[in-house]
Amino acid sequence: MPNATNSPYSTDPKTTPVTVLGLGAMGQALAGALLKSGHPTTIWNRSAGKGDDLVARGATRAASAAAAVRAGEVVLVCVVDYDASQAILEPLAADLSGRVLVNVTSDSPERARAAAEWAAAHEIAYLDGAVMIPTVMVGTPEALLFYSGDEAAYRKHEELLKSLGGQSAYVGADHGLAAVYDLSMLDFFWTSMAGLVHGYALAAKDGVPASSIAPFLQSHFSLLAMLIGETAKDVDRGVYPGEEGNLAMELEGVEHILHAAERRGLDVSVLRGVRDVAKRAVDLGHGADSWTATVEGIRKPGA
Amino acid sequence: MPNATNSPYSTDPKTTPVTVLGLGAMGQALAGALLKSGHPTTIWNRSAGKGDDLVARGATRAASAAAAVRAGEVVLVCVVDYDASQAILEPLAADLSGRVLVNVTSDSPERARAAAEWAAAHEIAYLDGAVMIPTVMVGTPEALLFYSGDEAAYRKHEELLKSLGGQSAYVGADHGLAAVYDLSMLDFFWTSMAGLVHGYALAAKDGVPASSIAPFLQSHFSLLAMLIGETAKDVDRGVYPGEEGNLAMELEGVEHILHAAERRGLDVSVLRGVRDVAKRAVDLGHGADSWTATVEGIRKPGA
Repeated sequence: MPNATNSPYSTDPKTTPVTVLGLGAMGQALAGALLKSGHPTTIWNRSAGKGDDLVARGATRAASAAAAVRAGEVVLVCVVDYDASQAILEPLAADLSGRVLVNVTSDSPERARAAAEWAAAHEIAYLDGAVMIPTVMVGTPEALLFYSGDEAAYRKHEELLKSLGGQSAYVGADHGLAAVYDLSMLDFFWTSMAGLVHGYALAAKDGVPASSIAPFLQSHFSLLAMLIGETAKDVDRGVYPGEEGNLAMELEGVEHILHAAERRGLDVSVLRGVRDVAKRAVDLGHGADSWTATVEGIRKPGA
Repeated sequence: MPNATNSPYSTDPKTTPVTVLGLGAMGQALAGALLKSGHPTTIWNRSAGKGDDLVARGATRAASAAAAVRAGEVVLVCVVDYDASQAILEPLAADLSGRVLVNVTSDSPERARAAAEWAAAHEIAYLDGAVMIPTVMVGTPEALLFYSGDEAAYRKHEELLKSLGGQSAYVGADHGLAAVYDLSMLDFFWTSMAGLVHGYALAAKDGVPASSIAPFLQSHFSLLAMLIGETAKDVDRGVYPGEEGNLAMELEGVEHILHAAERRGLDVSVLRGVRDVAKRAVDLGHGADSWTATVEGIRKPGA
């Protein structure tokens, strides 16, 4: 048991000292939420001039990354990618040893797993995290963050980690899983956003403002929400019942949209991808199945 | 004023006689909803053997399309496309004259406008419609259908048309508008569904079942719902404030997803389209703007 006077370790979870490395917009938001929930918070950024506002709110600015790490029982790192985080962390292996490292930098599952191996070799308790919300939502009860890796570390610091977002979830011991959940959800999210903006661009070509379409999309949205669960069930079973609407007919619908967009001079690269995946699934014999059968087209890429 | 005894015309909207041409799954659902709401309903299908269930519920089967048309004050047509609907309707121009024709066949705005010209030349009051819901939802208070074209005809038969779907909306005098709303919403819808299935396929490659992702997507969904309105406002203004997250960073996020999917052997044609449109918008100078600025990339297709 370390000496309480010169150690960052605390038995009250509310006063666990925490360090934030990286003060981009997200790092600042995370440090702000930690300060707000009462944690002694030490901050550091590679380039100077960031975090004055956090210092004014009570954060301690460390003179070096090593000093910052030594001040925290939990060390959060939030930088641009894993090249950047490993460049900061590797020289600090000895300082990090025995501490909990939480890397919320966005990158791939592979990079998270490689970082976990490095951390294990240095006896660093390691959690990989993924922040699923914009900076303005950090620290709210609705905010979602994923964590994966060292479960004991997660459970010990769950209250601290939930102060960053009330919906925080531990998704498994494989350190890559937070990134897997992140990538999967953002795959849906950015593709949907691409479809949203494209739908608006299409309507605008016939003089219909996006704001005339939006209320219908919003009220009609429950259909898509319902399909999130139904589609998941069918993907997991590998069974795609098509009684409610079959892929062959839906493919024709997509062709209508694609041709209308082409005739109006819009980019159709996304829609062409949607059409090609659906067509491949139809060609594989799924014409009478539901849209979910496009997963078979996705799993067998074209030439 | 036609003679009440031998005319299909009625002053009680609940008893307006209506004809449904085309008894595919959607045509049958529409006829079923009309029967349920008390309308004398005459049905006809090009090929025989369809609609027995509707006859058992009180529908009258017409011996010919012309007889069917003559039995209805409102004539609904619901077939595979406008080639099929015009093939049925053109020989019936004289019978349709003076009646209200509602074509809910899915096709392009251009085809709807051409059909409207043909209808006007034959003094047929014409509404183009778009059914935005699956057959099981037809006739429910939540069901959405769009109508455009002859506003007087819509207002006169609004109660009848709303019996097909409580959220029915008249969107303008341009007969192409129902199809424009339809295409715009389905552009978003099918692209989103493509992203959903792809996100699930991606997670499955690392052993995460879709049903583990789905609850997070559902609870996180309010973010996308909110963005539907915000994105519309920015598309309409042509201003894309990027303080909450800028396109250059988001493009990097999309690249992460794309590379992860590629490494896992999945089709990436949709994601590549998403990336290309975002990249084009960044190249056009919108890197510091929000994702909505991709509309500029969509409006300037690549080579």
